[in-house]
Amino acid sequence: MEIHTYEKEFFDLLKRISHYSEAVALMHWDSRTGAPKNGSEDRAESIGQLSTDIFNIQTSDRMKELIDVLYERFDDLSEDTKKAVELAKKEYEENKKIPEAEYKEYVILCSKAETAWEEAKGKSDFSLFSPYLEQLIEFNKRFITYWGYQEHPYDALLDLFEPGVTVKVLDQLFAELKEAIIPLVKQVTASGNKPDTSFITKAFPKEKQKELSLYFLQELGYDFDGGRLDETVHPFATTLNRGDVRVTTRYDEKDFRTAIFGTIHECGHAIYEQNIDEALSGTNLSDGASMGIHESQSLFYENFIGRNKHFWTPYYKKIQEASPVQFKDISLDDFVRAINESKPSFIRVEADELTYPLHIIIRYEIEKAIFSNEVSVEDLPSLWNQKYQDYLGITPQTDAEGILQDVHWAGGDFGYFPSYALGYMYAAQLKQKMLEDLPEFDALLERGEFHPIKQWLTEKVHIHGKRKKPLDIIKDATGEELNVRYLIDYLSNKYSNLYLL
Amino acid sequence: MEIHTYEKEFFDLLKRISHYSEAVALMHWDSRTGAPKNGSEDRAESIGQLSTDIFNIQTSDRMKELIDVLYERFDDLSEDTKKAVELAKKEYEENKKIPEAEYKEYVILCSKAETAWEEAKGKSDFSLFSPYLEQLIEFNKRFITYWGYQEHPYDALLDLFEPGVTVKVLDQLFAELKEAIIPLVKQVTASGNKPDTSFITKAFPKEKQKELSLYFLQELGYDFDGGRLDETVHPFATTLNRGDVRVTTRYDEKDFRTAIFGTIHECGHAIYEQNIDEALSGTNLSDGASMGIHESQSLFYENFIGRNKHFWTPYYKKIQEASPVQFKDISLDDFVRAINESKPSFIRVEADELTYPLHIIIRYEIEKAIFSNEVSVEDLPSLWNQKYQDYLGITPQTDAEGILQDVHWAGGDFGYFPSYALGYMYAAQLKQKMLEDLPEFDALLERGEFHPIKQWLTEKVHIHGKRKKPLDIIKDATGEELNVRYLIDYLSNKYSNLYLL
Repeated sequence: MEIHTYEKEFFDLLKRISHYSEAVALMHWDSRTGAPKNGSEDRAESIGQLSTDIFNIQTSDRMKELIDVLYERFDDLSEDTKKAVELAKKEYEENKKIPEAEYKEYVILCSKAETAWEEAKGKSDFSLFSPYLEQLIEFNKRFITYWGYQEHPYDALLDLFEPGVTVKVLDQLFAELKEAIIPLVKQVTASGNKPDTSFITKAFPKEKQKELSLYFLQELGYDFDGGRLDETVHPFATTLNRGDVRVTTRYDEKDFRTAIFGTIHECGHAIYEQNIDEALSGTNLSDGASMGIHESQSLFYENFIGRNKHFWTPYYKKIQEASPVQFKDISLDDFVRAINESKPSFIRVEADELTYPLHIIIRYEIEKAIFSNEVSVEDLPSLWNQKYQDYLGITPQTDAEGILQDVHWAGGDFGYFPSYALGYMYAAQLKQKMLEDLPEFDALLERGEFHPIKQWLTEKVHIHGKRKKPLDIIKDATGEELNVRYLIDYLSNKYSNLYLL
Repeated sequence: MEIHTYEKEFFDLLKRISHYSEAVALMHWDSRTGAPKNGSEDRAESIGQLSTDIFNIQTSDRMKELIDVLYERFDDLSEDTKKAVELAKKEYEENKKIPEAEYKEYVILCSKAETAWEEAKGKSDFSLFSPYLEQLIEFNKRFITYWGYQEHPYDALLDLFEPGVTVKVLDQLFAELKEAIIPLVKQVTASGNKPDTSFITKAFPKEKQKELSLYFLQELGYDFDGGRLDETVHPFATTLNRGDVRVTTRYDEKDFRTAIFGTIHECGHAIYEQNIDEALSGTNLSDGASMGIHESQSLFYENFIGRNKHFWTPYYKKIQEASPVQFKDISLDDFVRAINESKPSFIRVEADELTYPLHIIIRYEIEKAIFSNEVSVEDLPSLWNQKYQDYLGITPQTDAEGILQDVHWAGGDFGYFPSYALGYMYAAQLKQKMLEDLPEFDALLERGEFHPIKQWLTEKVHIHGKRKKPLDIIKDATGEELNVRYLIDYLSNKYSNLYLL
């Protein structure tokens, strides 16, 4: 048979996976935006059925045959087909190396572990969750042996979320970052120039927050012909298909930041997905390059645009109009200082820009210790609390505000956390390079002109989808390997100015 | 292998179909309640993929083997398994008798025909749609030969929507109905006692219509733990799974009846689905018995409850509170007479209770003529207009208000229309029987106590799902074959009182 026939059959399988993925993404989106509770059990089974169908196609004998045939004629393939086949092969091997029965057992364990985690967190009692954590770790240690690794066992898990990133790379980046930020956090904590944030938790009407969320999405370039905004408990962005990328947010009348900055954060994710090359649509390349690159886009919009003083120059009056009493005596500067307040806290998702990387480094070091067999599950809570004291100067008083705060481990997502901090480093390095091409960056914000910024990010990042690996995207875009110096400089300048250090 | 093993495998296949059906139903619901338009093409393909998966399971060799094995041991099966196997066999044969290539061609033709119909309706030009109608009819004539029939070719299409109902049954029912209603319509049209309906199209705030829609759903017994209400262009009710039955409505600030009676109509459909026996969940029996039985429930709620004077006794003040200016000089009697106004009109979906059956009879007689080869497509518009003149005394001036008004033929749904009128007959006969068990029916409405009514309908109709055929449900519930006399008496009494004939 002609090579094109195999290619067509290969892409038809990927297209079929994309249709099932659309159905699964819609069912997840629907479950988190108001689906009636009585239908949740059947819904979980329907999601399970379609996820199994995707898994079966990815690990089917026919997929293997097509990958092998296309590999034999690799040089005759287009660049995109090469990348798609490489990715399919990686997914096939990743999945196939785990015995099916063991994988099914693991999926069931994760589901039980999440329920146990919810109860443990609710009662702030790690002992209710630790037996499941024990088993989850054992499973992952076995998976690591199936997948194999070169330098460090933890690399096998890191690669799932950030292809090509290893312990060796992260040890060096995080050491440098830790060394710079811990003293800076201490200075900020000791500083006498703390902003007044009392106005932040005053009443801000939900309807007004919704209007502003829709307004900022529109202004920043989110395409409502290809998306919609809905309300949820844990905000997220999701892609159903190339023309349907949705965002969600949460409204807290006692803290407008949750909706405003949460929406701008998800807007960054969504603009990324809305601007992946349409030619990749329906293939396994029509996706973000990695969790870290995805987080770089959401953090770019949330922090480098959304928390930037110049962004609020044209828009602060809209905030004042939306909640007049709350903001009438608050100047633009007061507002900007308050939304950029930094102080050590226990909860990762509520952390500010400056302390956030330390929350990630703590999790990275603990996971590395787990998969280096240097710590037992039993000792994890004390190790967690010790690191919070060492890096942030505060000790969690309960498991709920300590080791039980994130769902990740319960869902088996070991190796995910570092992507959040990598996203930050990628964003800072991209921003620095963008300034060379768009020196008028601040002026653009002041004029509410975001198209040039979006255009630059689309050209350097979005358009590639999964064509490129994360570190290659950064290198090609900035002309340099990943360098944490840009994030350190950004944080040092910003917080020295804010706190007059 | 043990019979139970085959049974389990058979029900696992049905369960898998129910999961795919949930995904398809959710994708349709989402597309009609605000999905972004850019995603519609991919969405149509995803729906196409999952619908094909359902079709492939229903017509798979394995399904045939399981049906055959279970038929060999038919007497050992439980009653429900017997019914499920019979239904699966019917579906298998119905689908299998149509060559796959021909079915795919037909599905593509329907999709094109719907687009052509929309354009033809928009330009009110039947000639833009007739070439597609010609082909659709040819396909269905061939399908009829594949499916076979005993008495009349049209029976094969009627059976798709109303198992067991034939031309012979309908000719007699519709003749009797026509004979009684046409003179009644003439009397009402000539009557000098027409209600004042001028207040109906005054402004009624959308938010208030929404509040009332939610309120009536709650009052009538719709379970919001297992459902939700959303806005759409063409209202519908849909079942995603047994615990997730959704309703939609449309708000017209210039005509509150659209939302109020539309919502109560869909509420009837939803209460039916929410009360099918849970033991049938995940099987092909967990569905309405037929389109007609389903319509009987929606019409029961809309007309026998929603347009009943006694229903408004406790609730009319809520309408007055919601739009004070509009209703301040309108008495309860004026209100009830206006919402029950009857007058000949061109558009089926806007027709009142009295004239509605005539719209259906016109379509039934035309479809019967088509499949008896008694009329060419070319002659359909004039035949349509002639019948409107004969039965309703009015002649459509354009194709848009005439033969092009319904989407059904463009979607290939020949044989569907009679179910609407059958639903009416079923509802009237059920109502008459209910009065024997619940003589205090009107008092229940006056007290806003709908549970006994819902309980009665659940026992006699809802619980059975597809266990019983439509005519058997009516016979078992009322002790009598389907008898159009009850609908005739109901309409005669009601409109004689309203118009003082």
